[in-house]
Amino acid sequence: MSSAHQPPYFLGLDLGGTNVKGGVVDDTGQTFPSVSQLTRATLGPESGINTLAEVARLAVEASGLDWKDIAGVGLGSPGTMDLGEGLLLDPPNLPGWQNFPIRKKLAERLGKPLVLQNDGNAAAYGEFWIGAGRDAESLVMFTLGTGIGCGIIDHGRLVVGRHSNGAECGHLVIQMENARQCSCGAYGHLEAYASATSLVRRAVEALEEGTPSRLQEVWSKGNLSSRTIAEAAEAGDALGRTLMRETARYLAIGAVCLMNTIDPDIVLFGGGMIAAGSILLDDIKRDVKSLAFPIPAAKTRIEYASLGGAAGYIGAAGCARLAHSSHASDPNRLLTS
Amino acid sequence: MSSAHQPPYFLGLDLGGTNVKGGVVDDTGQTFPSVSQLTRATLGPESGINTLAEVARLAVEASGLDWKDIAGVGLGSPGTMDLGEGLLLDPPNLPGWQNFPIRKKLAERLGKPLVLQNDGNAAAYGEFWIGAGRDAESLVMFTLGTGIGCGIIDHGRLVVGRHSNGAECGHLVIQMENARQCSCGAYGHLEAYASATSLVRRAVEALEEGTPSRLQEVWSKGNLSSRTIAEAAEAGDALGRTLMRETARYLAIGAVCLMNTIDPDIVLFGGGMIAAGSILLDDIKRDVKSLAFPIPAAKTRIEYASLGGAAGYIGAAGCARLAHSSHASDPNRLLTS
Repeated sequence: MSSAHQPPYFLGLDLGGTNVKGGVVDDTGQTFPSVSQLTRATLGPESGINTLAEVARLAVEASGLDWKDIAGVGLGSPGTMDLGEGLLLDPPNLPGWQNFPIRKKLAERLGKPLVLQNDGNAAAYGEFWIGAGRDAESLVMFTLGTGIGCGIIDHGRLVVGRHSNGAECGHLVIQMENARQCSCGAYGHLEAYASATSLVRRAVEALEEGTPSRLQEVWSKGNLSSRTIAEAAEAGDALGRTLMRETARYLAIGAVCLMNTIDPDIVLFGGGMIAAGSILLDDIKRDVKSLAFPIPAAKTRIEYASLGGAAGYIGAAGCARLAHSSHASDPNRLLTS
Repeated sequence: MSSAHQPPYFLGLDLGGTNVKGGVVDDTGQTFPSVSQLTRATLGPESGINTLAEVARLAVEASGLDWKDIAGVGLGSPGTMDLGEGLLLDPPNLPGWQNFPIRKKLAERLGKPLVLQNDGNAAAYGEFWIGAGRDAESLVMFTLGTGIGCGIIDHGRLVVGRHSNGAECGHLVIQMENARQCSCGAYGHLEAYASATSLVRRAVEALEEGTPSRLQEVWSKGNLSSRTIAEAAEAGDALGRTLMRETARYLAIGAVCLMNTIDPDIVLFGGGMIAAGSILLDDIKRDVKSLAFPIPAAKTRIEYASLGGAAGYIGAAGCARLAHSSHASDPNRLLTS
């Protein structure tokens, strides 16, 4: 434990379909080493509570602090959820965890105040607190992976919504007619165009049509992914470049919709797809400039997130800190048990 | 003056391209009689200040109160604007008013604390305070007229944005390919599909193609408007019905985008187009149910605004009240001079 760390200390947990991550963060946002374990979600929620408790124990151990030093715990989880009640409702990434009172169960198990937050919101809050958005007052973050997660902070406050459906901006409708189907079943959503899954699907469509590309060989070997498509684009492959260019335009449209709704200081993109590097970010920036109104186009920063996969647990710890210190009237306060 | 009115009293002013409206509202949201004068915007902003001051004087006179009873003034204005600086920047509806320091000029003239707010935000705040959204904590309002205005309240707080570009949701992109052009010059915006102007344009396109309809005669007489189209739909005209049905679908898509971003208690539609009555609202509700996620679809109320053209000045007065009573850290506080 570094002497530079300042109490109180908060434990952040990031519950994903594959892994549970956890780590302690101090009052100033300085982190301690993090830990990770497989979720094994199919074993069900009671087993999941055991895993979360084990990650919590290991994370505090890794911090060198005592358990009693932890002032509160934040848990980021995939939805759907009821934040007011502290319930998981029907989370697609956690099969068998329906209607599970996760906040109460985990708070009892850990014996600490616990705040539940949506994973997209938690990641956005992490970037807002100590990441690429640390100088911002308002922030929008898109997490680009299998789907598209989102989190919004408006003047320092998470936009959680009134039915725990705030910041589900992967499901903005950006195309009404002849629209692609989203993983959620509806049509024309941002996620159906710009997620890693959609990028690969669009690549397969072009490759099936016989478009010449070095991606034909990658595809035949079963190695087609957002990463190999971005690599082909970087190496000058025309199809790869077209696919990444389209992706940037879709993401720019998503950014502009939020610039005309929330009007943040900064729009961040995080998640696995940002491994594509500056080629994607530069394309997004160019399209935002041409699609947005002049003032937000000139003033809104468009950047990559900086915390990688740590944003979730760091932000969850930040939400615990927020609940610890905020007024009773603050909606972010209401998520605690 | 009714003895039921409670101090402090706030004066609301609604600056439009055609009219300036004004009225006094008490601390509980009870209104006094309102007044209105022509803006005559082309005479320029200095003349405009005279008109605003005259409407202010008449409104206080109409209330039966003394000028000294007015604790603060709220002004709703069309943008573009810089709310932090209290400037009009380049308002299309107020030609010649560019870069005008309206907040300072009017505050000096009236000798009262003055809060400047975007007109769409002010109208939304009026409905939130004493109108159709008075039971809500979070609200989205679309004002359907020549264009589409919008205002958002998230947990009691206006979403003004960081560059005074919050809640410009008439400019959400809902169609990327083969998209209609918006009045702002860009393509595919909600306003380009669902405003009264767009409704008439879509009608003309169908009538030019020779679609049989009682609207052919209305058109030939120069009487085509959102109102006559809605009347034709109500009377069973197939083209009128199709046009209104399409309009409802576009508006439902706009509502769903906001339900997946802000997730409010209620989405309100106001402005001239709601004269179409229950036929339009029922269509919007049906489409929202089919397009939104199950929980927000079941729980989010979709309704018409209730204050009509008074929402703007009432909301402006409400913003003055908010600034009068709020904490220094509140972003809504920062709009005053």
